[in-house]
Amino acid sequence: MIESTRNPRVVAAARLNKAKARRDAGRMLLEGPNLLNAALDAGIEIDAVFTLAEDALSERASSIGVDVLTVTEAVMKRLADTESPRGPVAVAVLPSQGNIATRDTVILVAIRDPGNAGTLVRSAAAFGFQVVATPECVDLWSPKVLRSAAGAHFSTDLYVGVNPEDVAAAGVTLAALLPHDDGGPDPDPSVGPVGLLVGNEAHGLPARLIQQAPASLTIPTENVESLNAAVAGSIAMFAVAQGR
Amino acid sequence: MIESTRNPRVVAAARLNKAKARRDAGRMLLEGPNLLNAALDAGIEIDAVFTLAEDALSERASSIGVDVLTVTEAVMKRLADTESPRGPVAVAVLPSQGNIATRDTVILVAIRDPGNAGTLVRSAAAFGFQVVATPECVDLWSPKVLRSAAGAHFSTDLYVGVNPEDVAAAGVTLAALLPHDDGGPDPDPSVGPVGLLVGNEAHGLPARLIQQAPASLTIPTENVESLNAAVAGSIAMFAVAQGR
Repeated sequence: MIESTRNPRVVAAARLNKAKARRDAGRMLLEGPNLLNAALDAGIEIDAVFTLAEDALSERASSIGVDVLTVTEAVMKRLADTESPRGPVAVAVLPSQGNIATRDTVILVAIRDPGNAGTLVRSAAAFGFQVVATPECVDLWSPKVLRSAAGAHFSTDLYVGVNPEDVAAAGVTLAALLPHDDGGPDPDPSVGPVGLLVGNEAHGLPARLIQQAPASLTIPTENVESLNAAVAGSIAMFAVAQGR
Repeated sequence: MIESTRNPRVVAAARLNKAKARRDAGRMLLEGPNLLNAALDAGIEIDAVFTLAEDALSERASSIGVDVLTVTEAVMKRLADTESPRGPVAVAVLPSQGNIATRDTVILVAIRDPGNAGTLVRSAAAFGFQVVATPECVDLWSPKVLRSAAGAHFSTDLYVGVNPEDVAAAGVTLAALLPHDDGGPDPDPSVGPVGLLVGNEAHGLPARLIQQAPASLTIPTENVESLNAAVAGSIAMFAVAQGR
């Protein structure tokens, strides 16, 4: 039983609540039984599981050689991102980021809200899209984004810190998702994979990117200035998937 | 300048952060310039505006006879729901809730997350739906839901504490939004208005309601157990609006 919040393994793990520490260590934190189960199902490598008490899930991890460490509530609170954590919290290896595949892609351009980012990852997995996040985005591997995506991180491919130009270079046609139709041609899913650009919650997409994208897409709405960014991106992915 | 957080008008207004106080007083709080502007545009009655400093917006309110009260940062913090409030915070009259109209309706069944509820209100306004919230829902007039809907509360009709049976009684055909197709007939927007039932984030819709609804609707997905509730409801509204 680890009782001290200064235990070196606890200190090292708790650091992974910060994006920079995750990048440096190539590790992330998975909080709660659902995320840990989803990661185990997907064959994600787990370094350690911190748990308040041993149970079927910690046994599952232990059976494939993962270190299981029992900790006090104070230690769990130090590791977790939520208010009253019931655990477990696992340290897991970040999936390696290969070359961008030539397939339907949702590109998160400076999305700042972790709930929106996670919701977009969840919808992307549901509609068969891979996910690219620009360097200005919230880190897709943050505990809040992981929680919001409810395990979908492990059912599609994610690329963090990538610019839209690199997606276009992989043979994906960029399409700007715009609140008001700019008259540009709609993306044609029958021609090839679509790279949907979803802009920042407050500022939308940069003008430079809109000009650069050969296609654009607008969801017809009334009464409102815009839809929520995660909703707009999800409806656009749904529409492209329907067109396939 | 009001400097005391115990000022009776401040105390009375701050109470409106609670649902029960809002119901009893028939009043709500609007935080931030965008919500106050949207409410003024919509002709919502405002009792008072608390502001850190007089500006064009407080002048707009003042010009139609609204009390404008300058307050200190401590008082603003007492009134507001956000961490570092810049104001204004306005006390506004809750719109009266008339009989349920016979038109497309999204019915929030025990939606608990304020962000999801606000996002659904925003999408409802965008796709021409009115909004019904069951008694188990988060209060649609809470500051967090108002913020998340970004002013859309004032561009459609909202009915709080209403059961789906009352929507059906108004001549709206109920359709259960389900993560997995149960084989029921899709709603036919050409026959008449649709009442989309959107279930709780963790538990979905009660079995009783699913049986009762003459139609059901499923968004085709892969890889995930379900979509985010606000996304699922928004896509369903989009699909019904496209069918009109």
